[in-house]
Amino acid sequence: MTELTTAPLRVAREGDPPPPRRHLLAISDLDRNSVDRLLGTATTIARSLDREVKKLPALRGRLVVNLFYESSTRTLSSFDLAAKRLSADTMALRSSGSSVDKGESLKDTALTLAEYDPDVIVIRHPHIGAPQFVANVTHAHIVNAGDGKHQHPTQALLDLYTMREALGRLDGVHVAIVGDVLHSRVARSLIQALALVGARATLVGPPTLIPRGVESLGCEVSTDIADIEAADVVYVLRMQRERMDAGAAYVPSLREYAAEWGVTSQRLRPSQIVMHPGPMNRGVEIAPDVADSAVSLISEQVRSGLVVRMAVLYDLLAGGPGDDARPLEVA
Amino acid sequence: MTELTTAPLRVAREGDPPPPRRHLLAISDLDRNSVDRLLGTATTIARSLDREVKKLPALRGRLVVNLFYESSTRTLSSFDLAAKRLSADTMALRSSGSSVDKGESLKDTALTLAEYDPDVIVIRHPHIGAPQFVANVTHAHIVNAGDGKHQHPTQALLDLYTMREALGRLDGVHVAIVGDVLHSRVARSLIQALALVGARATLVGPPTLIPRGVESLGCEVSTDIADIEAADVVYVLRMQRERMDAGAAYVPSLREYAAEWGVTSQRLRPSQIVMHPGPMNRGVEIAPDVADSAVSLISEQVRSGLVVRMAVLYDLLAGGPGDDARPLEVA
Amino acid sequence: MTELTTAPLRVAREGDPPPPRRHLLAISDLDRNSVDRLLGTATTIARSLDREVKKLPALRGRLVVNLFYESSTRTLSSFDLAAKRLSADTMALRSSGSSVDKGESLKDTALTLAEYDPDVIVIRHPHIGAPQFVANVTHAHIVNAGDGKHQHPTQALLDLYTMREALGRLDGVHVAIVGDVLHSRVARSLIQALALVGARATLVGPPTLIPRGVESLGCEVSTDIADIEAADVVYVLRMQRERMDAGAAYVPSLREYAAEWGVTSQRLRPSQIVMHPGPMNRGVEIAPDVADSAVSLISEQVRSGLVVRMAVLYDLLAGGPGDDARPLEVA
Repeated sequence: MTELTTAPLRVAREGDPPPPRRHLLAISDLDRNSVDRLLGTATTIARSLDREVKKLPALRGRLVVNLFYESSTRTLSSFDLAAKRLSADTMALRSSGSSVDKGESLKDTALTLAEYDPDVIVIRHPHIGAPQFVANVTHAHIVNAGDGKHQHPTQALLDLYTMREALGRLDGVHVAIVGDVLHSRVARSLIQALALVGARATLVGPPTLIPRGVESLGCEVSTDIADIEAADVVYVLRMQRERMDAGAAYVPSLREYAAEWGVTSQRLRPSQIVMHPGPMNRGVEIAPDVADSAVSLISEQVRSGLVVRMAVLYDLLAGGPGDDARPLEVA
Repeated sequence: MTELTTAPLRVAREGDPPPPRRHLLAISDLDRNSVDRLLGTATTIARSLDREVKKLPALRGRLVVNLFYESSTRTLSSFDLAAKRLSADTMALRSSGSSVDKGESLKDTALTLAEYDPDVIVIRHPHIGAPQFVANVTHAHIVNAGDGKHQHPTQALLDLYTMREALGRLDGVHVAIVGDVLHSRVARSLIQALALVGARATLVGPPTLIPRGVESLGCEVSTDIADIEAADVVYVLRMQRERMDAGAAYVPSLREYAAEWGVTSQRLRPSQIVMHPGPMNRGVEIAPDVADSAVSLISEQVRSGLVVRMAVLYDLLAGGPGDDARPLEVA
Repeated sequence: MTELTTAPLRVAREGDPPPPRRHLLAISDLDRNSVDRLLGTATTIARSLDREVKKLPALRGRLVVNLFYESSTRTLSSFDLAAKRLSADTMALRSSGSSVDKGESLKDTALTLAEYDPDVIVIRHPHIGAPQFVANVTHAHIVNAGDGKHQHPTQALLDLYTMREALGRLDGVHVAIVGDVLHSRVARSLIQALALVGARATLVGPPTLIPRGVESLGCEVSTDIADIEAADVVYVLRMQRERMDAGAAYVPSLREYAAEWGVTSQRLRPSQIVMHPGPMNRGVEIAPDVADSAVSLISEQVRSGLVVRMAVLYDLLAGGPGDDARPLEVA
């Protein structure tokens, strides 16, 4: 996303000067200026969505491929709609029911896709580094929509956008990130993003779910749920049921987890706001009345996801930091 | 669809006056004027489909989401194509292979969708009332594409359209509805629609498959297959095999059902026309030669489905009864 | 594709003169002129894809339906993108998760589709002749995307295009087709296509995988892998693992097959080029270093597939041999 990230390109065809391609693979691809530019573009886009017809012509004729090796209706539909609202064409390749899961390697799938010359490939994959791998063998701009436990940068950007809309600022905001940090790419990206914009992050959860040494990313750690009280924003992570069912390794039971770590109205101060990346386990990591209350920004996060992903696609293809960047026109 | 149906809206955002939204949840949403207006729009659309390029610009930039919790290629593709032929964008969320079936509640899925600001949500769901529920939590126009055993209003409208095209009138037409009325939302919507336009409905089937008290909807009941002879239109319902396999509760066997209740050429008068909502069980509720004969309007029903659904989408978004309704331009 | 193939039409509606419809069901539908015209259109299209925005307006408002009864991400996405790049609308009906596999016959599905008036139906089906069947009951142009072991004509056309791009000619080119010819519709179409353009084909494989009497199609046969050395092009067929697992009927084991029939760098002359229809079993029918080497045209075949399918769709709907054919404009 910054000038720093120009991933190695595949062997160029004859007479084909390899253009530098910007990607969004991880929060570390971004600097403060990039974040501000993206959030600014998202704000412009959000205003355009108040109109009756919400489609913008900016990316007409462009192709955005969604390559999803993990099922995800939310993220896939968000990217798909973001591309369509910018008038791009979209194509989805999903692992279920496709040759994607008939043993073809990621490499051969990526090489095949490369020949279609997509403008952007949005990829979700269970293996860390898969997006970088695809960046290496295609000419497309790559957006990481989640790779293993590693990164999910557009989620972090939409979270920043949502906080800024609600609080008017990011600098100095204190965010408590509650729950299963260990398995969460959302947490990993968010911690780094908060550090980048001058916000403060405190991880709150049972010791088994907080990775050792995570403080080095620039955050504090607490194993006392009462410590969420100090935060401006309580960011609740999804408790992945499959971790539960696998045994008592991480937490004793859903019931006990909910009792000890669930975010309930009793544990919140009135002025705090609550966020969750979705989909929620109501009654486990978050109480239903909290999810539906006025302090919850969970629906706003979904809306932010759409505008931020529109901003990212626009920035990669038509905007960006360079001299030839075109300002987004929504009039 | 009429002025009567303005479903409760979700809590409005600040400064956001809640516009009245029209929906098509059930035939009871419609009055005779609404039906006439819709069938008139469908006729206009049908004429436009004789041209080489069949796409109309009417809903350019609009978003129609198809949210299907039951698999249905026919109905889903009909709505999808109806939206595309009006130049709308479409997005399908299906229960198989999506987070829709990963335990997220209809409520949370609907709240998520609401943030995308779709213009129309077409929903099929196994539970009665699901479309109304979604209408309550989003700003979209809702079209019920089948909810449990309750309603499937666009099917009834396309059936009316097909009959009117074939017979030149609806008033006084006599329709025999044959077979499994008990489990059929198609029958329920059709009976009400026929009553609305002054047509006459007679339900014909084994007593186990005719719901008690159904006469109150405004129809007659017969348990003698010979009574189909009096009708202008013989409307054959799909025999749902799953009901059969479940035991002898409803009918003794497929073979016996076909022998006793199957619509065969021997049981028809030459001037009668035959309809079926599809997909057919050839050789069970309908004889193959009847399905393929000149008196069958089954293919016409598919075509009517497309134009009627285009009319419904157009009416909800740009037409309708109000002062600001725009007449559909197809020139 | 030629004037010869005007498949029988369904019973016409009143006052509806049945227009002659061209199809691409098999290579035998084509003559040398048709092939030259299609490859010429593909070349024009390929040049247009060098531009930043790759979409052409040629088929705006047209509808291409992809009806796939076998899963295939590659072929489906290639046709889907080909249609989109020509500005057509697309609709995919796939057998998994759809009423297509809920017992409805191909006939009833085709009759339903016919009512939507699609401009083109692209069909893949496990049964030989299914595309002709659909041609008989709809007004659409039909493209066979693979029917059983019979034909896959667009694959053969993209292979011709790829060879001509690489070698500058087709006449007199010698192609060795290596592997499981018996089960391969790709081989069957390619052998005929090579004969049509004056190229020479030699089938190379174990006797159990070469169909008896195949020489009558106009090719030679060898059971010695060393004979690939004489060819300009080594065309490697996919070894279908399901054939292997089924027992020792065809080949003793994957390992032995790879050792005896795998195309390795040792078995190639430096000036030979290598092709494969994909997806590859790396290490079985083709060595990984060969697949990735400079002599491999496997990625080029994917790109050729896109432009050749665009050419076929364009030719059927707007081009062709007739007086009213419109030259493709890409400016």
